[in-house]
Amino acid sequence: MTLFIDMDEVLADTYGAHIRFYNDVYNESLSKKDCLGGEVWQSVPKERQSSIHEHCYEKGFFRNLKPIENSIEVVRELDKYYNIYIASAAMQFPNSLEEKHYWLEEYFPFIPWQQRILCGNKHILKGDILIDDRKYNLESFEGRSLLFTSPHNVNTNGFERVNTWGDVASLLL
Amino acid sequence: MTLFIDMDEVLADTYGAHIRFYNDVYNESLSKKDCLGGEVWQSVPKERQSSIHEHCYEKGFFRNLKPIENSIEVVRELDKYYNIYIASAAMQFPNSLEEKHYWLEEYFPFIPWQQRILCGNKHILKGDILIDDRKYNLESFEGRSLLFTSPHNVNTNGFERVNTWGDVASLLL
Repeated sequence: MTLFIDMDEVLADTYGAHIRFYNDVYNESLSKKDCLGGEVWQSVPKERQSSIHEHCYEKGFFRNLKPIENSIEVVRELDKYYNIYIASAAMQFPNSLEEKHYWLEEYFPFIPWQQRILCGNKHILKGDILIDDRKYNLESFEGRSLLFTSPHNVNTNGFERVNTWGDVASLLL
Repeated sequence: MTLFIDMDEVLADTYGAHIRFYNDVYNESLSKKDCLGGEVWQSVPKERQSSIHEHCYEKGFFRNLKPIENSIEVVRELDKYYNIYIASAAMQFPNSLEEKHYWLEEYFPFIPWQQRILCGNKHILKGDILIDDRKYNLESFEGRSLLFTSPHNVNTNGFERVNTWGDVASLLL
């Protein structure tokens, strides 16, 4: 069975990085709870939104993300039973391409380069299961779609949902 | 119809770049004809082979490749009738990821980032047609496979072959 796993907000805590950046720059105390149902930039005053967008293009942003809790342990276990591919819609951020490679080398070295995909649209993927936090990626996938909970998608319906990597382990192991 | 197009030796002349590099460094006059049926490194003396491998990892190698003859014109025409995705097995060369992005921005800007894929294995691609120079990419593809001629594959059989972008135009336009 082929299992595709998204990176941002599934393996790597992009959302948390946006919040940390915002709090550091503006001396605020924004939390994930404050942003539920939207993107981080949508939860801050208008005149501060562009700085969050620009931050993604800065050198080091994608290299310095923290792994999502328990993702490494569970993916290592899943790797014994599934053909795992890490599939990230990275082409939007050219600066992220090499950084994502080195991030995976650090945290998921047991998934070799042959099993890494940096793409734009994900509807060209052929496989059995996709774990992703974005509705538009999941709805074009022909196999089983698992919506990984992120603050931005708490109001998204119509998909089998996993809230944590513990949930993924319960379902797939 | 979804059409996948490989980069190295289909859109970008990697083979020619290896030969130019070799001739420059060793003051030789190796040609594509001298290498038919093998890789460039296989056609040079043993003690010089590793320098060709190492060259691929040098900054600028993938950024400075020349487009294959007529590739831009024909892909621009195909783009009117097909959903085109450029799919490159780039993950082997981390330094190539960003360079390939900028190379495509220069020569194929009409194929947007949403339609670019940098991957390892290509058997996760779901679509109708794949144009590639490597047997191992084509044989795992479920759709129509077109083998694009490169000096290294002249003895490969079992695939519908296109020798030039003119051939591709005749078949697909």
